[in-house]
Amino acid sequence: MNSSRNDFDAVEVIVAKRDGHRLSDEQIDWVIDAYTRGAVAEEQMSALTMAILLNGMDRAEIARWTAAMIASGERMSFSHLSRPTSDKHSTGGVGDKITLPLAPLVAVFDVAVPQLSGRGLGHTGGTLDKLESIPGWRAALSNDEMMRQLEDVGAVICQAGSGLAPADRKLYALRDVTGTVEAIPLIASSIMSKKIAEGTGSLVLDVKVGSGAFMKDIDRATELARTMVELGTDAGVHTVALLTDMEVPLGLTAGNALEVRESVEVLAGGGPADVVELTIALAREMLDAAGRPDADPAAALADGRAMDRWRAMIEAQGGDADADLPVARETEQVLAEADGVLTTLDAYAVGVAAWRLGAGRARKEDPVQAGAGVEIHARPGDAVRKGQPLLTLHTDTPERFERARQALAGGVVVGTAADVTDRPLVIDRIGA
Amino acid sequence: MNSSRNDFDAVEVIVAKRDGHRLSDEQIDWVIDAYTRGAVAEEQMSALTMAILLNGMDRAEIARWTAAMIASGERMSFSHLSRPTSDKHSTGGVGDKITLPLAPLVAVFDVAVPQLSGRGLGHTGGTLDKLESIPGWRAALSNDEMMRQLEDVGAVICQAGSGLAPADRKLYALRDVTGTVEAIPLIASSIMSKKIAEGTGSLVLDVKVGSGAFMKDIDRATELARTMVELGTDAGVHTVALLTDMEVPLGLTAGNALEVRESVEVLAGGGPADVVELTIALAREMLDAAGRPDADPAAALADGRAMDRWRAMIEAQGGDADADLPVARETEQVLAEADGVLTTLDAYAVGVAAWRLGAGRARKEDPVQAGAGVEIHARPGDAVRKGQPLLTLHTDTPERFERARQALAGGVVVGTAADVTDRPLVIDRIGA
Repeated sequence: MNSSRNDFDAVEVIVAKRDGHRLSDEQIDWVIDAYTRGAVAEEQMSALTMAILLNGMDRAEIARWTAAMIASGERMSFSHLSRPTSDKHSTGGVGDKITLPLAPLVAVFDVAVPQLSGRGLGHTGGTLDKLESIPGWRAALSNDEMMRQLEDVGAVICQAGSGLAPADRKLYALRDVTGTVEAIPLIASSIMSKKIAEGTGSLVLDVKVGSGAFMKDIDRATELARTMVELGTDAGVHTVALLTDMEVPLGLTAGNALEVRESVEVLAGGGPADVVELTIALAREMLDAAGRPDADPAAALADGRAMDRWRAMIEAQGGDADADLPVARETEQVLAEADGVLTTLDAYAVGVAAWRLGAGRARKEDPVQAGAGVEIHARPGDAVRKGQPLLTLHTDTPERFERARQALAGGVVVGTAADVTDRPLVIDRIGA
Repeated sequence: MNSSRNDFDAVEVIVAKRDGHRLSDEQIDWVIDAYTRGAVAEEQMSALTMAILLNGMDRAEIARWTAAMIASGERMSFSHLSRPTSDKHSTGGVGDKITLPLAPLVAVFDVAVPQLSGRGLGHTGGTLDKLESIPGWRAALSNDEMMRQLEDVGAVICQAGSGLAPADRKLYALRDVTGTVEAIPLIASSIMSKKIAEGTGSLVLDVKVGSGAFMKDIDRATELARTMVELGTDAGVHTVALLTDMEVPLGLTAGNALEVRESVEVLAGGGPADVVELTIALAREMLDAAGRPDADPAAALADGRAMDRWRAMIEAQGGDADADLPVARETEQVLAEADGVLTTLDAYAVGVAAWRLGAGRARKEDPVQAGAGVEIHARPGDAVRKGQPLLTLHTDTPERFERARQALAGGVVVGTAADVTDRPLVIDRIGA
């Protein structure tokens, strides 16, 4: 770090941002380093993050902030691999199991896909929680194991090590309890610091927008996408973002084993149309970014190559790709209350219901149920008859059904065809 | 407190203010109580105070915030005294020794003056530090001692007990390290919660504006004054504010014993014109507010009644009103560098110089030097000759002279008469 760190104090940095000024490179380097070391107190950083949330940061400030977070930890490199790397990050949605078919699918075309993933919190599921429903599969790999699997199989989905951007981990925990999660500069730098530190050559961002997403409106989602694309580009990572719809859950399942089952259907050449569409759209972007513009991902789903790669990926991490997946002990159905057309299937309501059934966790120490979740039998636009099952709720703990139904109140609506809003799945594409 | 406190969590309250909403009475009651109890964490309160600083609070919110801070501690009452009470509060300035002559002067007219005061921090002096330069004088009185002195002498200047508005003490310490001191709603509620809890019948506020004051510009000073007058009025305290100039130090001294000596000159019917003018202006407001519109404070300074009351007040707290005051061991003079007219004598520069000479403290545990400070020999508008002494610097520790001179650089300017700005001492008066 620079030698002038003693020239700052935390109040001076806070006051600068509070009063609407730019933070200098030196101020940003100092405050991130001092916060990581504990020399800037939690209450000082929370005042600064609130000032950033309300007064913003410009492109150069966000880039420096991200660089300082990267500098707080280790950097990885995939440059010794024999093939290009491409990574994908989703801002999180309900039923978003896309990573599962996507990573092996892209690996088919000789691109290495290092998916350093997390666990779920709140109403959106975590990729590691989903894969852990596969008997034997383990999330924690050493760096050597990860590199070897990338060379041998081409795809790895594993737990991110604690060495990448430790400042971000500390800062995220603080933002979570101080109402400062929603600052776009901080969201963007949090995501991108880890992706840049990881060392991927290219990155495709899936920025979700809608009720089930972190970003509820398209303007803010667009701003977040653009900010992250700029950060990646400025750091030399080929970065593209797709803005995708999250008013409705992705596919027909939300829940850990339920989503693995659906992902396997997609890898077998079937599966729900929206999951297939988004998997192929993201695969095309990753393959383009990695220098494989002629690859045909749809063909690799149809002819079994993606499935073979999936099996190799799961087995390399101890998983039994042929094992039966866990099933919840109890189920209940949610029935249509009238004849008509399903007009609303609210992603947030379904996400909260799945969470309450046991698929998600409220605190990061909580366990999850592998079999819990929501199965979807009708999607907006489908004609339904009174008494027809719209959803099946799955849980090991039937006392949870009641709260799951409360979460769904108002989120599942039967009306007329005129009330159905037709929305594209991929709303926009934002490149460098 | 209300029974609905469990209905809130800190993030919800922070997010409401962050997003520009009003806080409800119940949210305010809950957050102040929970913070005082430690159930709302320091980093949560600092995010909330930053959101308040940037998004503001309306009159009703500020009133409720103040009431919640009062409710965090004890309330005093002077209603059993045989005379009305009137208190004065200054937002702090350089050379502001007005409390010393003012309290006994107002007490002459059968008005009780309970001055619960503090120590200095930074470039402005503290009333208790000044009085402690009088041999034997003690700041700490029990509530009973204070009440007895108010009945017997009519005036008391003593240390505020820790029972009044403990939420404010905790919050002030937090604001001090998180860049959130400057929020007008928080400044106003901090001052007024203690004054209302103290139980004074009327209150005159001296809101300083200028380089040596906390408020540098007149619009913000006016907003602060108006906010405090509204808070006092809404709480049933007859409250008036004077906006007074603090571009130039008050009087001819800044430093503890130096200021006591000047106060005694005023009480003897002499002293610098500006100190006399402001003492009388504030005395008139206090006497009016306490129902003594016909009192003649100038006469009480001229005929020795105020001095008699001063001696009684000092002696009641163990002080020797006839003792020699401490004198610093070393002095140095600051000389005029040219012939001309003194155009600038910057209050902040003089305040920082006095602080560095030992009159003030940087941390509240630091000791102060009774004799240290700055004596002023010329004021803006005075003709000066090259080599003439403009200031005398006093300290027990001569290694401090150099840093005091650095603080004065640019703050003492000799120019021409055309460059002198004539400014009124009392700029404005803000009543209910």
